Amino acid sequence: MTETTIAADVIAAENEKRAAALKDDYQALGNQLARRNIDIEAVTTRVAEFFVAVPSWGVGTGGTRFARFSGAGEPRGIFDKLDDCAVINQLTRATPNVSLHIPWDKEDPKRLKAHADALGLGFDAMNSNTFSDAPGQSHSYKYGSLSHTDAATRRQAVEHNLECIEIGRAIGSKALTVWVGDGSNFPGQSNFTRSFERYLAAMADIYKALPDDWRIFSEHKMYEPAFYSTVVQDWGTNYLIANALGDKAFCLVDLGHHAPNTNIEMIVARLIQFGKLGGFHFNDSKYGDDDLDAGSIDPYRLFLVFNELVDAEHRGVKGFHPAHMIDQSHNVTDPIESLISSANEIRRAYAQALLVDRVALDGYQQDNDALMASDVLKRAYRTDVEPILAQARQLAGGAIDPIAAYRASGYREQVAAKRPVSVGGSGGIV
Amino acid sequence: MTETTIAADVIAAENEKRAAALKDDYQALGNQLARRNIDIEAVTTRVAEFFVAVPSWGVGTGGTRFARFSGAGEPRGIFDKLDDCAVINQLTRATPNVSLHIPWDKEDPKRLKAHADALGLGFDAMNSNTFSDAPGQSHSYKYGSLSHTDAATRRQAVEHNLECIEIGRAIGSKALTVWVGDGSNFPGQSNFTRSFERYLAAMADIYKALPDDWRIFSEHKMYEPAFYSTVVQDWGTNYLIANALGDKAFCLVDLGHHAPNTNIEMIVARLIQFGKLGGFHFNDSKYGDDDLDAGSIDPYRLFLVFNELVDAEHRGVKGFHPAHMIDQSHNVTDPIESLISSANEIRRAYAQALLVDRVALDGYQQDNDALMASDVLKRAYRTDVEPILAQARQLAGGAIDPIAAYRASGYREQVAAKRPVSVGGSGGIV
Amino acid sequence: MTETTIAADVIAAENEKRAAALKDDYQALGNQLARRNIDIEAVTTRVAEFFVAVPSWGVGTGGTRFARFSGAGEPRGIFDKLDDCAVINQLTRATPNVSLHIPWDKEDPKRLKAHADALGLGFDAMNSNTFSDAPGQSHSYKYGSLSHTDAATRRQAVEHNLECIEIGRAIGSKALTVWVGDGSNFPGQSNFTRSFERYLAAMADIYKALPDDWRIFSEHKMYEPAFYSTVVQDWGTNYLIANALGDKAFCLVDLGHHAPNTNIEMIVARLIQFGKLGGFHFNDSKYGDDDLDAGSIDPYRLFLVFNELVDAEHRGVKGFHPAHMIDQSHNVTDPIESLISSANEIRRAYAQALLVDRVALDGYQQDNDALMASDVLKRAYRTDVEPILAQARQLAGGAIDPIAAYRASGYREQVAAKRPVSVGGSGGIV
Amino acid sequence: MTETTIAADVIAAENEKRAAALKDDYQALGNQLARRNIDIEAVTTRVAEFFVAVPSWGVGTGGTRFARFSGAGEPRGIFDKLDDCAVINQLTRATPNVSLHIPWDKEDPKRLKAHADALGLGFDAMNSNTFSDAPGQSHSYKYGSLSHTDAATRRQAVEHNLECIEIGRAIGSKALTVWVGDGSNFPGQSNFTRSFERYLAAMADIYKALPDDWRIFSEHKMYEPAFYSTVVQDWGTNYLIANALGDKAFCLVDLGHHAPNTNIEMIVARLIQFGKLGGFHFNDSKYGDDDLDAGSIDPYRLFLVFNELVDAEHRGVKGFHPAHMIDQSHNVTDPIESLISSANEIRRAYAQALLVDRVALDGYQQDNDALMASDVLKRAYRTDVEPILAQARQLAGGAIDPIAAYRASGYREQVAAKRPVSVGGSGGIV
Repeated sequence: MTETTIAADVIAAENEKRAAALKDDYQALGNQLARRNIDIEAVTTRVAEFFVAVPSWGVGTGGTRFARFSGAGEPRGIFDKLDDCAVINQLTRATPNVSLHIPWDKEDPKRLKAHADALGLGFDAMNSNTFSDAPGQSHSYKYGSLSHTDAATRRQAVEHNLECIEIGRAIGSKALTVWVGDGSNFPGQSNFTRSFERYLAAMADIYKALPDDWRIFSEHKMYEPAFYSTVVQDWGTNYLIANALGDKAFCLVDLGHHAPNTNIEMIVARLIQFGKLGGFHFNDSKYGDDDLDAGSIDPYRLFLVFNELVDAEHRGVKGFHPAHMIDQSHNVTDPIESLISSANEIRRAYAQALLVDRVALDGYQQDNDALMASDVLKRAYRTDVEPILAQARQLAGGAIDPIAAYRASGYREQVAAKRPVSVGGSGGIV
Repeated sequence: MTETTIAADVIAAENEKRAAALKDDYQALGNQLARRNIDIEAVTTRVAEFFVAVPSWGVGTGGTRFARFSGAGEPRGIFDKLDDCAVINQLTRATPNVSLHIPWDKEDPKRLKAHADALGLGFDAMNSNTFSDAPGQSHSYKYGSLSHTDAATRRQAVEHNLECIEIGRAIGSKALTVWVGDGSNFPGQSNFTRSFERYLAAMADIYKALPDDWRIFSEHKMYEPAFYSTVVQDWGTNYLIANALGDKAFCLVDLGHHAPNTNIEMIVARLIQFGKLGGFHFNDSKYGDDDLDAGSIDPYRLFLVFNELVDAEHRGVKGFHPAHMIDQSHNVTDPIESLISSANEIRRAYAQALLVDRVALDGYQQDNDALMASDVLKRAYRTDVEPILAQARQLAGGAIDPIAAYRASGYREQVAAKRPVSVGGSGGIV
Repeated sequence: MTETTIAADVIAAENEKRAAALKDDYQALGNQLARRNIDIEAVTTRVAEFFVAVPSWGVGTGGTRFARFSGAGEPRGIFDKLDDCAVINQLTRATPNVSLHIPWDKEDPKRLKAHADALGLGFDAMNSNTFSDAPGQSHSYKYGSLSHTDAATRRQAVEHNLECIEIGRAIGSKALTVWVGDGSNFPGQSNFTRSFERYLAAMADIYKALPDDWRIFSEHKMYEPAFYSTVVQDWGTNYLIANALGDKAFCLVDLGHHAPNTNIEMIVARLIQFGKLGGFHFNDSKYGDDDLDAGSIDPYRLFLVFNELVDAEHRGVKGFHPAHMIDQSHNVTDPIESLISSANEIRRAYAQALLVDRVALDGYQQDNDALMASDVLKRAYRTDVEPILAQARQLAGGAIDPIAAYRASGYREQVAAKRPVSVGGSGGIV
Repeated sequence: MTETTIAADVIAAENEKRAAALKDDYQALGNQLARRNIDIEAVTTRVAEFFVAVPSWGVGTGGTRFARFSGAGEPRGIFDKLDDCAVINQLTRATPNVSLHIPWDKEDPKRLKAHADALGLGFDAMNSNTFSDAPGQSHSYKYGSLSHTDAATRRQAVEHNLECIEIGRAIGSKALTVWVGDGSNFPGQSNFTRSFERYLAAMADIYKALPDDWRIFSEHKMYEPAFYSTVVQDWGTNYLIANALGDKAFCLVDLGHHAPNTNIEMIVARLIQFGKLGGFHFNDSKYGDDDLDAGSIDPYRLFLVFNELVDAEHRGVKGFHPAHMIDQSHNVTDPIESLISSANEIRRAYAQALLVDRVALDGYQQDNDALMASDVLKRAYRTDVEPILAQARQLAGGAIDPIAAYRASGYREQVAAKRPVSVGGSGGIV
């Protein structure tokens, strides 16, 4: 561990304060679960083995087109970001992997790997960026990237993705996530069919370069940055892509990329059924792609997504190993705190889903006993599993209350002293 | 023609009043289009050859779960309905085919065929009904039909569809439309995966019985009557169905069955691209499946859908012959008037789409000239094509102003005198 | 108590089975809450004093415009409905009052009062019905009621409301709820301004007849049964109504009557702030006015609504006593079970809201510590308060597990034997 | 006129090419309208007198939180912006006024006035900016401005608005538009009631300083930049503000700031009825606050808004003089072209609304003849009024086809040569 992470005695001292209460609560919950024929230890073990990747870009302060309000001690680059990610993992023991975004995080792969190794971190999926122009880029993505009408621009976008794969190979990643902003702002601006043909051809070029043990994730989104149409607008189109590309191609589900009122858990079930669920970008939203903290707006929806995942495990779906990643924008909180909290919320939903009595549920479904079927889910959901989460963290060396431990550690103040205040960023883009 | 349809001299007299103005307007529009290098006669000819089927159930007054307010002279059964449909076609010359709903329209096929022949009508797609229970039915569809957990109920639903095919064969239909209300009202009530497996298996049984020259259309819908999940919830699932079933299976797009803000024209483009667009249920909506008159709420959206259809023709897409049907609920208007108006609006969108300068559009798209690409569409859309529609009607023997002619004919008063007032229907279902 | 309600020994036997576990869970929760400086007994007491009215129409099986699938033992009239309501209250001890709908529940007020008294029930707000036509009615509400263009129709609608007040006075009600379906299906059909002027004038006529100790609740709804515009479409219009009428006029918030993505709890806060929150029609929804069981789709939203109510109590808002009513449609469950469950869920949200540490919350809000402010709410929300709810029921003579007790009682089978199967209702209204 | 605006002979030459066709089309339309008892000259006169203000910030290229792709010849400051605005007005003769945004456009008022005078431009409403931090600002708006928990921050925001009034007085503006981004991203972050109390108090401070002949416009918005709650979230809250402040306070309606499916024209009608419609920020949207070009997505909706405005004029509503402003973000087009096109679309909607036969409409509304009422609107809407718009422009010295004239002028190339490429702006704010 490097000097920037939390001192072990801080965590120990904080845990000390809470250990007795946790023991009581864990015991009481264990008793209750035992009455429901659930072994709390088994649940705690499974929770402890559940991990979610954090996004390197998530530890910086986010913003909107109206403004970005910087925070104290923002990371100056990928090495600072990795330090911040290490804190999250140290306290939660839930986030051992980091997902990089290129070119934002572009650095010498050996140095990246060494820094991560020193922090006990690994690398999750690589993310390419063809939704903004990097300085010095030959062709602009103003009018698209992989689906651009100009062949040279498409080629540049393909090559950028190939570079992401190369970097990823060097640092131990096993997947590439492709999200493009391609689309249109006016009816007529794009020919839907030709755009999609171009996109598919470009993706096929990337797919050809994918190592055998890699997966490629395409990500759909209803709108933004394009406001009339988006090339990969929904899971239907996303499925067509994964299907066209081949066995290593899968669909990524970002919880905030759907139309209002969409039943997301059903999309998850469909993709599992047809062998194309690649994984998730977790976050929460009330209106659009709000990128709020996971579970902060509609925690029951998050639970219902995990209910599908645990159901798939329960049914023994073959080759089922979705990638779990967080993708959020932290505009008004300390990003480290939001990521700690979000990792917990995601584990919470998983733990609750593990408590579902699937035999009973199956029986009620078979009998069309809607009320009791619903109650089986609600009963699992309303169980306060915090003692399980805390116990899993504590046993793995993390904090019983990671936010409290983080605040007690003074980490933010320490890095603020070292890292200069970043400039505000956008303004006047309305 | 039977005695109930409009007397030819009524139409002639009404046309007489409007012929001179039409001639002037048609001439002026022809001049303007000539300047845009468009031959108005060619457009009129294509419009005259465009037809849309009317739904038998559309000539009755619709309602909501709160109430149904009956209208004067409502049809007492399928023969009255066919009479009403004949009036619509006589005045518009745009609706020569009727789509039946079984068991609502179940009658001796020979009598159906004879009655329709006498009225100059044919039959479009057959519609099965497994979203409500018919009197005397063995198994209830309360908890589903083709996806029901009970095998006997699924079998009953399959057999009902087979019967629809049989009736259809006898009367000259060539397609079966399957829309089910199957779904759930509570998280947990249904297992998404198993429900869909059962649905697919049942559909495969129906598909096996489909005559070689028939098509089967599956219809997706986001919600209602089920309010948490629907088995065929969106075009993604619909595509999976059509793909699983085979070459005679296609997706039907009802314009009101989508999530808020959905780009429907893009879905149309995707289904065309992947060879699975079966056709449409036209209507308009502001909130949900409102089943309002086509073009009454968002006429530009209707145009954009037709823009995709004409674009597909223009690109010479193989095997492209979507079915055009209206599916509306007429709660506050005379249903005959609404269907006349809607057939006109649908032809209007088609005519406008024919005016799009596709060579110019292609160039602007290639150059990413979004403003001019948009303008090409808007220029076509804002052209007042009413003279073309009126001319097409007049030349085919219909009415220049079909609503005026209908009112002048006194048809509604005549049938009101013969047909008793129907009972209000639902009440207290809130 | 009448012979149709649950035998006391059934409840006792069922409670006997669960008493020990409840004692343990209640004790454990009490310990945990004590650590959070919360007295569980005080919470249980407040929960026990919280009541929500059930709607007479809710004990019948609901349906949609597509179909209604009847259930076993459906009530034949208001007296059967009251019997069913008594069961709900007997088991939950949370629903001592029933809300009537006229003319559906129109009967001799003395008999109504006597039957309710015998069952230990009282009467909550009266509901008028001008969204459907009653048999023999002079003027149809097809084109509106209180806002109709025809003065005689408006007068009829006003008089119907006056009659509701009269009946209500005779049976001890203290409020009138007015929901109208008035609106339009086509742009142009109604003049928004004139319609609203007529509505306000008619409501003023009703208001004049309101007894001094009554309140009148107007209810807004975005759409349905009207699909283009609704006269009382949102809380803004609803506020204008309450403000125009006077001090006894208040706004009713139905949780399912809002636009997608609406922040409902904020509307609740605004109405409280401006002294116009009348009360609630509780239910849950995913798409539109789905009328699903309270808390079944988005339980956190329900909690956030109650968080506003408890916050208002905490701040000591003057004259704050909102009416709590359930308004749901039970299409696939036993309505008695759904109402039992919903009453519990509503009390659950109330209990969770009582656990919010409002001093801490206030501090975090003042400091813009968004993460901790959010955590204060989540901490209260994720507490499993079921032991509190069960204890409150048990102490008041109800059931620890009211659904289990209800099923054990055989009530549904008993009334099914006495009450004939009701006819399906709507069909063919699509 | 300055050297940067379009040479008169360019416009003349372009008009020359199109004059004959315009004459023909205008004549033909005049004939058709005469048959409908409409005097085309009267309509053209009213259209020529209809103006809409352009936003200074609209002539720069917009962007999203993901990226901003700069365009050629972007304005370097307010004087360049005014030059660009002058071009729009020169070609359309529809946009003589510019709306400024402070501090973005902060300059010596005398120089501003002189530059505008030289260009023949005036100033519309002033816009304050408390949704982003200006360099050197004492207090950050990260957690709010007028509703901030900190009194000094609120005071700073109030003073900024007072400064906007001062600048506005010096340059001849008569209105202040206040839009704040205040809100929250997490349930619990803000106390809805206290936030709104603080907002109202701060607005009252601003209102006190408002000159007697000024108006203040508050603007509501559902979400963004805050993603859980917004202080002024909808027209209901906006009405409460205007009502609380006084007679000079009015509500501003931005067409893109509403919940999905909202009937915006009805909100317009309500605000007119209650004397609180201040004016508009015109744009179009498909998903959220997309800020697309007016009329590009749903032109019928824009028409229906203008139908309310013309109806209000027709009914002689007292004190009715709404402010018309454009507020758009031009991400993929030349902003000058988009603003030209949008001004035309807005005038188009106005012209179409002028063609509505209001006597006939009133009759159909009175008779509940929904179909014909709808048809009256559709008949006006589908009239191709482009000849009227072109004639109005030509008569006033503008261009028959302003986009073509603009392109022919080479203005963009000229300014591109003088103005350096602006830096991309935001990036990495996701």
